[in-house]
Amino acid sequence: MQTMYQKMDDAELASALADLKAQVAEVKARGLKLDMARGKPSPEQVDISRPMLDLLSSSADLTDEGVDCSNYGCFEGIPSARKLAGEFLGVPAEQTIVLGSSSLNIMQDVIVHYWEKGVPGHTPWHKLEGVKWLCPAPGYDRHFGLTEDLGIQNIPVRMTETGPDMDEVERLVATDPSIKGMFCVPKYSNPTGVTYSDETVRRLATMECAAPDFRIVWDDAYAVHDFGEKPEKLANIFDFAREAGNEDRILAVASTSKITFPGAGIAFFGSSPSNVAEVASTLKVGLISANKLNQLMHVRFLPTLDAVREHMERHAEFLRPRFACVQSKLEEGLGGTGCATWTHPNGGYFVSFDGPEGSAKRVGALCKEMGVTMTPAGATWPYGEDPRDTNIRIAPSYPSVEELSAALDVLVLAVKLVSAELASEERA
Amino acid sequence: MQTMYQKMDDAELASALADLKAQVAEVKARGLKLDMARGKPSPEQVDISRPMLDLLSSSADLTDEGVDCSNYGCFEGIPSARKLAGEFLGVPAEQTIVLGSSSLNIMQDVIVHYWEKGVPGHTPWHKLEGVKWLCPAPGYDRHFGLTEDLGIQNIPVRMTETGPDMDEVERLVATDPSIKGMFCVPKYSNPTGVTYSDETVRRLATMECAAPDFRIVWDDAYAVHDFGEKPEKLANIFDFAREAGNEDRILAVASTSKITFPGAGIAFFGSSPSNVAEVASTLKVGLISANKLNQLMHVRFLPTLDAVREHMERHAEFLRPRFACVQSKLEEGLGGTGCATWTHPNGGYFVSFDGPEGSAKRVGALCKEMGVTMTPAGATWPYGEDPRDTNIRIAPSYPSVEELSAALDVLVLAVKLVSAELASEERA
Repeated sequence: MQTMYQKMDDAELASALADLKAQVAEVKARGLKLDMARGKPSPEQVDISRPMLDLLSSSADLTDEGVDCSNYGCFEGIPSARKLAGEFLGVPAEQTIVLGSSSLNIMQDVIVHYWEKGVPGHTPWHKLEGVKWLCPAPGYDRHFGLTEDLGIQNIPVRMTETGPDMDEVERLVATDPSIKGMFCVPKYSNPTGVTYSDETVRRLATMECAAPDFRIVWDDAYAVHDFGEKPEKLANIFDFAREAGNEDRILAVASTSKITFPGAGIAFFGSSPSNVAEVASTLKVGLISANKLNQLMHVRFLPTLDAVREHMERHAEFLRPRFACVQSKLEEGLGGTGCATWTHPNGGYFVSFDGPEGSAKRVGALCKEMGVTMTPAGATWPYGEDPRDTNIRIAPSYPSVEELSAALDVLVLAVKLVSAELASEERA
Repeated sequence: MQTMYQKMDDAELASALADLKAQVAEVKARGLKLDMARGKPSPEQVDISRPMLDLLSSSADLTDEGVDCSNYGCFEGIPSARKLAGEFLGVPAEQTIVLGSSSLNIMQDVIVHYWEKGVPGHTPWHKLEGVKWLCPAPGYDRHFGLTEDLGIQNIPVRMTETGPDMDEVERLVATDPSIKGMFCVPKYSNPTGVTYSDETVRRLATMECAAPDFRIVWDDAYAVHDFGEKPEKLANIFDFAREAGNEDRILAVASTSKITFPGAGIAFFGSSPSNVAEVASTLKVGLISANKLNQLMHVRFLPTLDAVREHMERHAEFLRPRFACVQSKLEEGLGGTGCATWTHPNGGYFVSFDGPEGSAKRVGALCKEMGVTMTPAGATWPYGEDPRDTNIRIAPSYPSVEELSAALDVLVLAVKLVSAELASEERA
């Protein structure tokens, strides 16, 4: 599709460029300082979890089903928290481990463990040449960082509206035994907001893999983070995997970081019975037990998944107007210009935005010059290399709607100027 | 030294054996269930930290020097906690990182990091054949587990009354470049209770190492855990190391696990400025930020090292009678028998007990038959291999004084019977 600037004649384009540059100069002069880079809730949104802090006091019962949460022990997590983890991840409580506050940390521990010692019965990954990993893109930069850090080669696979391009995924894993795993954010994917279709989930769980030690990191980070009219429903990957005898393939994680306090929540791991036993025995080498008081405080506040969903309704009240603002501002500023497409998520924390080819880095830089910080262009691709340089992740949760609105005006202006410049450069 | 049983004539020994066996049978019939295995505080002792739980409530200020502790960010830890960590470890606050609840986890992360990628400028340890590590013994089994898990060869070095045998340590590290590090619990060492002398600290900091990437894990787990008449004073190893240009050698850790809530405290890392920067950049790959609300709660409760020391006075009140009970029971039961020696610590959590050669495993098993669980014999040595099979770790903190007293009677009886049996077997 052509942009409106490509369709202009030279005089029109020159005039549009002059006008846009004048607007940019004007914005620069205003000395804005706005931030749409970070997928973190606003302070007011975080505050809805404050009542949780009253639940553990000096006189509280600090036991959970007979487990003393105030002393060492109970490595796998307290019983109530494991029950909640099971509900979250779609496995029985015994197939979970509840740990500290970071699911990213759990993913790293498990991947590093396989890298060090291998999936049981298989060669440690550090002893193999050219281990590869599939990275749906646009995707989550911190995922890609885990494998990159170990020297594992990240292979991008394009995201579609039903999840990763499964034809491509199946083709790759069927023939290449050095592909050892894949990252997935299956619900309200970061940043596209896509929820994997049932068919995608089934294919991931049942596909033939050349590597017998192939693993899927199933990061259900936005399992309950709905704000659309109707929550999207993700199929239970364990059901498919169990039937196909592939339950060991699935390494599921989630956390309450965007449910209670970011960075101070509790994190869950769920997998097959044998994986859970093996991962627990591995993690025990470096941990006596996790913070069980934090687990206890959480389950007192959110004892069931229903309680979690009720709490998430309140989060949605903060997110809904922000995402509506993104949608209306982008539609108003860029609708019909041919300069951009963007997603309309029903949950999660991001809008995935695509400008013309070769625009994203320039748009990011221009926004910065105008005082608006965006997630660095390219961050949504492995090694920061967006092959077409189109994708920008918009994180609208932290700023106020007013700030957000101002930041989106800047983004729209930047996209227009860069699109016009690109059209002009084509002609040169 | 001979045991009293070795000095007996055959008839006396036979009579003593019969008498001891009768006593054992009697104890077995009582069906005791006592535990001296675990270095954890008693529930009553843990409860003294309960007031901390009232300090973060729904209406509390959740910021620390301008840092919002209720949201992502501030990876290195909140300012007040880093100050406290600096006081703890003897380094400036900027040379610390404050993380989750486990110092063991920090040690593992750092060792695994060097194993994966190497100390900057040096070969990753996983690419080297036969990496070795020095393990003062008797020592802490979980330390030994960290290196054992990576296939690093643990080399025991005997503990003396002033710390590890430094002549042996210096001899080994000077000539063998495959020795990459060493574990130290420098104050009230687990389990001997020894505090390293100033001279030992100085030698560790300044000794010549064949490996330029040699590291000392300086686990100051019992930094403030005094209960004797006068706190023992540990020299600041960083002062010596800095002077010798070896500051990078020292990886210091500590935690509040035995200060506030075991497993739910906050853990500290401290090292040279360059190590701290490098370790932070490494850990950031797998962690957005640690639980800063827990950090905030801790520094509100214990804002300074002086406040910590005051709080530790109260802990000492629980520990003092228990350690006194161990001393009086062992003296009463085994004093002058030649069957045992044991330590008289002024702090920490353990008494290190040595019976006759070849006795420890049998004593442990016999205690178990009589209903008393001890730390498994051998646990204080790498690979569980106590070369003379003499050492038993006594952990008196958890049981009540009454239970402890009963458990020590059992231990005394077991040591006597095994000593008598050993004397009898010598003659056969």
